[in-house]
Amino acid sequence: MLDIHLKLINSVDGCVDEALCGLVRASGGLSLLKGHRVLLRSDPENLRGKVALLSGGGSGHEPAHGGRTSFFFFMGCKSDLFLIISVSSGVLLIVKNYTGDRLNFGLAAEQARNHGVAVDMVIVAEDCAFDQPSKAGRRGLCGTIFVHKLAGALAEEGSSLDQIVSKVTEVLKGVGSLGVSLSPCSVPGCRPSFDLPPGDMELGLGIHGEPGIKRSKVASADEVVKTMIDHMTNPDSQSHLPLKSGDSVVVCVNNLGALSCLEIAVVTKAAIVCLEGRGVVVARAMSGSFMTSLEMAGVSLTLMRANQETLRLFDAKTSAPAWPNLSSVCVSGRNYVTEPQAASFLNHGPLSPVMRGALERVCSTLLEKQEELNALDRAAGDGDCGNTHAEAAKAIQEWLQDHVVPGDPGQLLSVLAGLVQEKMGGSSGALYSLFLTAAAGHVTEGQSNAAAWAGAMHAGTQAMRRYGGAEPGDRTMLDALCPAVDELMALTTAPPGGQLAVLQTAVQKAASGAEATRDLAARAGRASYIAAERVTLPDPGAVAVAAILGAVLDGTP
Amino acid sequence: MLDIHLKLINSVDGCVDEALCGLVRASGGLSLLKGHRVLLRSDPENLRGKVALLSGGGSGHEPAHGGRTSFFFFMGCKSDLFLIISVSSGVLLIVKNYTGDRLNFGLAAEQARNHGVAVDMVIVAEDCAFDQPSKAGRRGLCGTIFVHKLAGALAEEGSSLDQIVSKVTEVLKGVGSLGVSLSPCSVPGCRPSFDLPPGDMELGLGIHGEPGIKRSKVASADEVVKTMIDHMTNPDSQSHLPLKSGDSVVVCVNNLGALSCLEIAVVTKAAIVCLEGRGVVVARAMSGSFMTSLEMAGVSLTLMRANQETLRLFDAKTSAPAWPNLSSVCVSGRNYVTEPQAASFLNHGPLSPVMRGALERVCSTLLEKQEELNALDRAAGDGDCGNTHAEAAKAIQEWLQDHVVPGDPGQLLSVLAGLVQEKMGGSSGALYSLFLTAAAGHVTEGQSNAAAWAGAMHAGTQAMRRYGGAEPGDRTMLDALCPAVDELMALTTAPPGGQLAVLQTAVQKAASGAEATRDLAARAGRASYIAAERVTLPDPGAVAVAAILGAVLDGTP
Repeated sequence: MLDIHLKLINSVDGCVDEALCGLVRASGGLSLLKGHRVLLRSDPENLRGKVALLSGGGSGHEPAHGGRTSFFFFMGCKSDLFLIISVSSGVLLIVKNYTGDRLNFGLAAEQARNHGVAVDMVIVAEDCAFDQPSKAGRRGLCGTIFVHKLAGALAEEGSSLDQIVSKVTEVLKGVGSLGVSLSPCSVPGCRPSFDLPPGDMELGLGIHGEPGIKRSKVASADEVVKTMIDHMTNPDSQSHLPLKSGDSVVVCVNNLGALSCLEIAVVTKAAIVCLEGRGVVVARAMSGSFMTSLEMAGVSLTLMRANQETLRLFDAKTSAPAWPNLSSVCVSGRNYVTEPQAASFLNHGPLSPVMRGALERVCSTLLEKQEELNALDRAAGDGDCGNTHAEAAKAIQEWLQDHVVPGDPGQLLSVLAGLVQEKMGGSSGALYSLFLTAAAGHVTEGQSNAAAWAGAMHAGTQAMRRYGGAEPGDRTMLDALCPAVDELMALTTAPPGGQLAVLQTAVQKAASGAEATRDLAARAGRASYIAAERVTLPDPGAVAVAAILGAVLDGTP
Repeated sequence: MLDIHLKLINSVDGCVDEALCGLVRASGGLSLLKGHRVLLRSDPENLRGKVALLSGGGSGHEPAHGGRTSFFFFMGCKSDLFLIISVSSGVLLIVKNYTGDRLNFGLAAEQARNHGVAVDMVIVAEDCAFDQPSKAGRRGLCGTIFVHKLAGALAEEGSSLDQIVSKVTEVLKGVGSLGVSLSPCSVPGCRPSFDLPPGDMELGLGIHGEPGIKRSKVASADEVVKTMIDHMTNPDSQSHLPLKSGDSVVVCVNNLGALSCLEIAVVTKAAIVCLEGRGVVVARAMSGSFMTSLEMAGVSLTLMRANQETLRLFDAKTSAPAWPNLSSVCVSGRNYVTEPQAASFLNHGPLSPVMRGALERVCSTLLEKQEELNALDRAAGDGDCGNTHAEAAKAIQEWLQDHVVPGDPGQLLSVLAGLVQEKMGGSSGALYSLFLTAAAGHVTEGQSNAAAWAGAMHAGTQAMRRYGGAEPGDRTMLDALCPAVDELMALTTAPPGGQLAVLQTAVQKAASGAEATRDLAARAGRASYIAAERVTLPDPGAVAVAAILGAVLDGTP
């Protein structure tokens, strides 16, 4: 194991500047302030008379802060920026409550004031981790992006600096966050920020690699979410978020970096269900990567109590590149399940005794050949070809006993397609089902003569080839099926007296086609992964097809 | 090490259904088809007369496929869905070229045809990994989302099924993808999909855990991107993307799961620069998680040659929840750097000899006390307090020699603030800089009497307290500064003859305040992490402040 996690960067020293450059270049609305780690709107002239927002912090939390705010700056911003934004009616600094951030933004604010700029600051401190926060106060976490969004919407519609500060300060009383992680992260070139054994998780951690408040074994997503929301809303904690039944909230499920999107979606569901279980109305839910800690495999939950005005600002259109494409429909109370409309197109007429006989012979033949097919399959596959065909045969036998079967041959083939898809499974099931489904469209009660059946067989074979991607000669069931179907096409022109000869020839061609697969190298299917010299027996799929066709013919008068 | 990577889910069996539920519940525009792993638009009535899109595949690639298409289905969809979408003018299936996907979508297509639905299929096969693709053909990767987007835009504006198939088939000739990963992923409940030693990377891998075509040591982001684009566009490969100077492309930088957003941004920059270096015009760039492989720490690049019509469709508005908030400005050729407007507000008048003398004494005092301050700091910090103050002192000395200094005391303080911020660094630099910046606004050439200076000192101290978060009594520099400044406020009312006494008292109060920090427990700054009983010396920051104030007074007449 390497001590230092290797990253896909060019250099530790250069990665922040390169990441900023990548962010700006991909975002038409952003510009980079030359000589600084500062991003700004590429249309500062549109700030005229409006309040400008500035936010920022260290790197490693992308897409925060560049993807959010009208203006944005990293540490060490000089007064240059304030000259650029002098067209604005005032500047709001949005600061996460970490000492370094407070000091540096404070400095910027004082510099701005000295230049006559109207400036104010909102400090976001919504972390719910500590029951008794230290003197430094609660940390600023992902709740910051809610402030970006609401303040941005207010600024855009022309609110004054005082109005914006007053509004977001009020909203912040109803915002709380908590994180959990299954892994630490590591700053480029450094060792992991803390040790966390596999199988453990850390609750209440910050976004700068600070460890959390409690370590435990990884629990289920539902339990973890419940623990988090319990902790966040516990009135015994000085940093809890007051939340009661009937309240409306916006919930943000924030990927701290490396949790899979599947897990994020599971956590999102758990959070919505948990909140609704407490009588809380989930007004909006957003999930994704918003305030990350590099590659930390964790998630944070942020809740914001929201009234109609808050939601109006939350829903307002924005050009911020990292804001997701959200709908403005209330999550709770929405009907999110569509009832399928039952398909009731079957004509339950009597099954033709000829077709029943053919089907019964096919099933008994496949059951007889189960071990033979398995043995053939062991040479080049996983040895279950006979079993899968037997499963299909048994399913059809049961169905023949228990159901009134359709008299329309097309409908019968559709039923068989469904049975095979469901009971046989795998690629074989899909291929047979495809064949039967495509064939079904070519035979109806009114059109089921020999020529129609030949057309149906041809259509089924073509569908297998088209979607399966194999051709005759690839050592698959097509090597039995295709020569037989080519022969069957003679039925479209053969006189009634010549049909039996055609059928017999077709069955022979299937059998010889199957036998000839001994000499073919597999080019499709699982057998294609086996070296050609190891395969000296015929292909079991082709043998099965030849057996099925032979069983059908046995009963033909 | 556990063999199986623990995930934040409730159960292996339930995680797909729960993730789908989470995705749907958080997205106002989506609905779940009851009893199926199928998502559909919650407004199917708006499909009337338009082409409906269906896409899908296995899970683990979230936000694909649910976040993209109007309609969406997972494997095993039954005919139910086709009844629901019977209002549409036709159905387009968008299928990634994997055998299982082809078979199952093929089956769905044949079922639909049997029900009289106009249906067609586009198979996406844009993988550039293999020089000589196997019979199964090139794999379908992240390029699929471009097809979703373009086909969706065409369908929305009323194009016919044939028109859509024809357009996207043409576009697909100019789409290519390639992936690289620094780690495998693991399906919930399973071991990693392949072994990859730390420090190695795998090029050309698929999104189902299939290993790639080449393994090597992790290289720099620029080298990796160059290797990828070279491979993707190599005319000797049967699966290359033809790309020449002058072509326009859309580039998608897709996080395969667990790469940090910082790395994704670095790769995005590298891809844009590499393409532009070949004379290719980057028309649009998008980056983020679009077609993932669970928690694989890797990235794929997808390039799509694009003309104006392609870009028009790419830019079209969509309600798909996972589509990013992109701008429609061409990436190449855009000026993405803003020139800072130089600040030229300094009045370069002569420095008052009194102020020069005071500054010189402060600097020499701090240099004399360097080792004393370091020794104090070793008791409770990292022992560099003297060094950082000496850095600031030397910077000011150099500046005094080399520059015409401003005659306006406010401007002088601003210059000092900048010097200290830049050369001293850290929290101390930020705090001194804050003090000086806030003080600077209170003294000008026209207003620099004793009362103005007292007001300036007070404003500086208040800024330190406000942004730094510490209070007197917390064992910081404020314990020397605050008593002194409280005394200095007497200057605002003291008669001219009484000013010296006030200054002397202030310096004494600073010294005794510093001395008294021996008995204080640290509640802010780095020393607050040290147990109180271990700290028996005065706080070095407070001692430094007392020394500075003393040095200023020494020269006062």
